[in-house]
Amino acid sequence: MTSALERGRDIVRTLNPALEQVLAERYDDLVDGFSESLVEWAYGRHYARPGLDLKTRQLCTVAALTALGGQTGPQLKANIAHSLAAGASREEIVEAIWQMAVYGGLPAAINGLNVARDLFADLDRET
Amino acid sequence: MTSALERGRDIVRTLNPALEQVLAERYDDLVDGFSESLVEWAYGRHYARPGLDLKTRQLCTVAALTALGGQTGPQLKANIAHSLAAGASREEIVEAIWQMAVYGGLPAAINGLNVARDLFADLDRET
Amino acid sequence: MTSALERGRDIVRTLNPALEQVLAERYDDLVDGFSESLVEWAYGRHYARPGLDLKTRQLCTVAALTALGGQTGPQLKANIAHSLAAGASREEIVEAIWQMAVYGGLPAAINGLNVARDLFADLDRET
Amino acid sequence: MTSALERGRDIVRTLNPALEQVLAERYDDLVDGFSESLVEWAYGRHYARPGLDLKTRQLCTVAALTALGGQTGPQLKANIAHSLAAGASREEIVEAIWQMAVYGGLPAAINGLNVARDLFADLDRET
Amino acid sequence: MTSALERGRDIVRTLNPALEQVLAERYDDLVDGFSESLVEWAYGRHYARPGLDLKTRQLCTVAALTALGGQTGPQLKANIAHSLAAGASREEIVEAIWQMAVYGGLPAAINGLNVARDLFADLDRET
Amino acid sequence: MTSALERGRDIVRTLNPALEQVLAERYDDLVDGFSESLVEWAYGRHYARPGLDLKTRQLCTVAALTALGGQTGPQLKANIAHSLAAGASREEIVEAIWQMAVYGGLPAAINGLNVARDLFADLDRET
Repeated sequence: MTSALERGRDIVRTLNPALEQVLAERYDDLVDGFSESLVEWAYGRHYARPGLDLKTRQLCTVAALTALGGQTGPQLKANIAHSLAAGASREEIVEAIWQMAVYGGLPAAINGLNVARDLFADLDRET
Repeated sequence: MTSALERGRDIVRTLNPALEQVLAERYDDLVDGFSESLVEWAYGRHYARPGLDLKTRQLCTVAALTALGGQTGPQLKANIAHSLAAGASREEIVEAIWQMAVYGGLPAAINGLNVARDLFADLDRET
Repeated sequence: MTSALERGRDIVRTLNPALEQVLAERYDDLVDGFSESLVEWAYGRHYARPGLDLKTRQLCTVAALTALGGQTGPQLKANIAHSLAAGASREEIVEAIWQMAVYGGLPAAINGLNVARDLFADLDRET
Repeated sequence: MTSALERGRDIVRTLNPALEQVLAERYDDLVDGFSESLVEWAYGRHYARPGLDLKTRQLCTVAALTALGGQTGPQLKANIAHSLAAGASREEIVEAIWQMAVYGGLPAAINGLNVARDLFADLDRET
Repeated sequence: MTSALERGRDIVRTLNPALEQVLAERYDDLVDGFSESLVEWAYGRHYARPGLDLKTRQLCTVAALTALGGQTGPQLKANIAHSLAAGASREEIVEAIWQMAVYGGLPAAINGLNVARDLFADLDRET
Repeated sequence: MTSALERGRDIVRTLNPALEQVLAERYDDLVDGFSESLVEWAYGRHYARPGLDLKTRQLCTVAALTALGGQTGPQLKANIAHSLAAGASREEIVEAIWQMAVYGGLPAAINGLNVARDLFADLDRET
């Protein structure tokens, strides 16, 4: 049986193969073991669980980060990209964000839409 | 073409046919037009939109209400019931809640699990 | 010129003459100086300021506590009572609460309406 | 009797006549019907209600957005401008913001003051 | 070298030896591996780290749960008990809570004080 | 016996001697008495209290601001600097921040780490 860390790395390979290294370079000198701990907990102990498919998990995360408000902008951006990697369409992502106007209020939903629009524009420019 | 209110009522019929009347009895004397306005906005202007299936919409709502924290307990309970009505399994609902430990913190996720467990126990007693 | 503490006590006399003593009995043994400090800061340094009338200040507080969510229920209840003492009608209070559905989301607004309805029912029973 | 959408448009005409068009240009391609839905819900279903005057409604919104914290900065800025259009003085707006130090904490209040100061400076430069 | 799970179990032994079993009985049937995952992440990956003593870690947690608001009441109660187990005095705990009035607002601080007072009363009754 | 304002000024002298003047220049024209009121309340009525040492108070504040999320970035930055002035090491500060991943979620903790890293880099450049 694989460890939580290994299961997390399997998921990250699908969502963003560079993630652990990017996090390691940015945070491991400040917090020893940061990148490994994050992959183990977030991906190995949550996303890797059976019972809910990866694409729905990602859309749930996008919805929750939107509802939590704009201070989670950088994480929302990363998770929109991960949602695309997990097979969600842009339309599905936008719908998951806009629906949060009901639960987190209009400001949270609008700030979330702005993050999505900016990321989509970046992706269009890259191609 | 149907109005937003009619489209909302179509969705509510699937999720909880009694919802509009329950809300009307509880709140319309306090806020004139409350139940109609809620069905129009939440269900007609959001859940009735194309682009994301109803079950995923409900799981996104469950995730977001969990991340927003325990003060949304009554709404979380209602939306777990709606998620079951939209075809989600108990396991899928629990996974959407527990994953929020990553984004909203452990207390929010644990409080969400408690809401789910209590509702499942109620449902089991009823049957 | 009066001190902030005296100015705060003047305001509290209008809103709820028993407030400082109630707070003193409940909290001063736990936090030395609690009641005095609260009256000085909240009422002497904020509500006693010129530039905005007391009734509007109270309605702003009711709106904000609603938007912050149901964990502030006890404080929302107290501030609805203070709003009535400052001359706001029940209708004005309910409107300030319900409007928060736009900014804090439907769950926060509904939880706020429940607090108002329960307090109004208590007041009706007392008379 | 007018529809909620028409009643919302009447209010928006007072607060910011360009609002619906600006929102439409910015968001309607991303979320079909966004601007109409927002005007209907926020302004037609809330601000257009009887029972609380428009200026007090705006000050309640400014207070709540401040208490919800700095991630709602863009919406706070827009609603400070709407408050001025509804007849509130700068002093009344600042007081509604600063009072939130009691309920949302000092950081939220200070971030709100910064938004107000920047907007007032912009307005002074324009004239 | 010990694993994160073992390091977490060492910490939990100090704070509350029954914790993992209590969590297992309450949640492992709902979320497979819940208790192990929580001990590994919260205690093994955080509290077990060098660089900050356990008592200060607990007081930081008490402060943060207070500022996050009353919906975290059950977790605040548990962490006040853990703080006592880690050597903090009741006075230190109360001070860490009351200081949060500055950052999370008065309602959050007052709700936190209520949790502390109730727990202290329970402990006094037990002895 | 000294007043709360004087006791607050004593604490501020340790944490950041320029603080009251900086706040006065930035906010007193907008909110009459702002700087005096803040020093009296935050430092005179909280930090100056006996029962918890200044360094632990600062670490509690850093933890809470982190958990409250990135919108408190400017205040988190100031309080990390105050924590260093109160004798906390960089490592202790980083640990207080990272631990908040458990309670406020990973996004809040990561945003807090970014604030710390940027401030430490600024301090290293200055010397």
